[in-house]
Amino acid sequence: MITADELHLVEEALLGAVASDVDLLARASEYIIASGGKRVRPQLVMLAYRAVGGRDLTPVVPVAAAVELLHTASLIHDDINDRSDLRRGRATINARWGNSLALLIGDFVFVRLLNLIADLDPRVIRVIAQCCTGIVEGETLQMLHLGDTELTEETYLRIVELKTALLFSACVELGAAVGGGTEVQIAALKEYGLSLGYAFQIRDDTLDLIGEPDELGKPVSSDLGQGKMSLAAIYALKRSEGAKEILFSEDAQQVNQLLAETGALDYAATKAQECVEKAKRALFSLRGSQAKSELIRLADFAVLRGK
Amino acid sequence: MITADELHLVEEALLGAVASDVDLLARASEYIIASGGKRVRPQLVMLAYRAVGGRDLTPVVPVAAAVELLHTASLIHDDINDRSDLRRGRATINARWGNSLALLIGDFVFVRLLNLIADLDPRVIRVIAQCCTGIVEGETLQMLHLGDTELTEETYLRIVELKTALLFSACVELGAAVGGGTEVQIAALKEYGLSLGYAFQIRDDTLDLIGEPDELGKPVSSDLGQGKMSLAAIYALKRSEGAKEILFSEDAQQVNQLLAETGALDYAATKAQECVEKAKRALFSLRGSQAKSELIRLADFAVLRGK
Repeated sequence: MITADELHLVEEALLGAVASDVDLLARASEYIIASGGKRVRPQLVMLAYRAVGGRDLTPVVPVAAAVELLHTASLIHDDINDRSDLRRGRATINARWGNSLALLIGDFVFVRLLNLIADLDPRVIRVIAQCCTGIVEGETLQMLHLGDTELTEETYLRIVELKTALLFSACVELGAAVGGGTEVQIAALKEYGLSLGYAFQIRDDTLDLIGEPDELGKPVSSDLGQGKMSLAAIYALKRSEGAKEILFSEDAQQVNQLLAETGALDYAATKAQECVEKAKRALFSLRGSQAKSELIRLADFAVLRGK
Repeated sequence: MITADELHLVEEALLGAVASDVDLLARASEYIIASGGKRVRPQLVMLAYRAVGGRDLTPVVPVAAAVELLHTASLIHDDINDRSDLRRGRATINARWGNSLALLIGDFVFVRLLNLIADLDPRVIRVIAQCCTGIVEGETLQMLHLGDTELTEETYLRIVELKTALLFSACVELGAAVGGGTEVQIAALKEYGLSLGYAFQIRDDTLDLIGEPDELGKPVSSDLGQGKMSLAAIYALKRSEGAKEILFSEDAQQVNQLLAETGALDYAATKAQECVEKAKRALFSLRGSQAKSELIRLADFAVLRGK
């Protein structure tokens, strides 16, 4: 179990990392860091560290903060490209400071992670470098396929792997590596992280697609509005001739009906559940510990959570 | 002297670094890398390496490529924010692929430098991390002062330091460090690089301000059009009541007359020349070598070059 005090170490590292003489950069970075999120990635780093026997979290805090900064930086740039105004109920950086400054604020948050990792083991830097590349490649592939109703499930899953699952996998790989885990333990945790990442993103995309029950009448899905495909949408498009028109109709009720009737929601839910099972199975060889139980709980949570 | 063959090693490292399964990212990165530039920064790395006694360039090539990638990535994002259509006579990335993809292409070029440096000495990574922060801070400060006719020379020079001079300084610091230079040699080269960076940027800004002689009638200065201040403009604003109106009039002839009559051009040229002298003086303690002569030549070139 990661305690609130322990998670607070990450918050401190995050805020310390984005200090700057340029007041705006510090303020904007603090603004988005303070807007929180569940800190899933830092928790994964810390839990993997504990699961392989690490105790005092000090050595792993910079890594936990670095992955969160990477995630945060990518959100800032995504929000520019998606023209999003709101994130976690607050104005996005681009909505508040405009696109040009938002671009630089995203760059800033990103480059600050370099400072956090400069003195760490080359393995840490290499793994983070690969994730960075993956995220940018995933976001680019996604953009190149916006509005592409011919998108295959294979390419969709490749995008999910690049933009989400690789980072999840890196979190547990790095936590375990810094915690002195064996290569067998590290490989098991990487497999866990990858599958968890898939489950997490598939569920996220589905949640976006079905929208909030109290928001009927509003455009259902912000992803669909931007032409972003998801597993359920891809499935529905394959099953129903009229799916294309309905999906882009912005009629929440019709979209939900289509997704239910074609079995698209079930299909996506099953896929996500399979990934959760695979993630949990990957942990089988790890010795029992509170951290391991917590990792299993996190996997179950990935498909249960609401928006 | 860095030979064409030796510089070619950097080109190969640059192209190798931006390989990607996502074809667009590879193509766009190759496009901007192929558009060249003078590779001043890689040359600085290599010359400093040689100036402290390094011979075989192999160990310093990744560093030389990394600083050029950093510079290139920052140009891509600058061009988005500046709404520039042309760079080095070719369409900018944003003009060719649009702002959203350009943002990701810039991110991509940037993150690829992480791979180049992951296995290098922590000092290298730390210095590059500081430069990254400096560049983003400098660009941000510049943006916050767009159109600010009250900008002080001090703040202008701070922007120049952050966005340009720190990277120049880092280039020679890293070249010398990898080449096994003493801390005294490294300190001397850092001083050289910093002063050279100031001279280079002051000259660059002045060149932009006076425009091409064959382009009279066109908007004189793209910087002024964007509200970017320069040393000469700041000086003219202090000396002449009507300067503000003339500077933003887009009348090339009037602007050039103002800059000449107020002595603003002379002032900027003198400042740049002082920086060049300071840069050259910093090299005094270094043993004579072909590389040292080349560094001196580069400094002289900084104030002589045309656009």
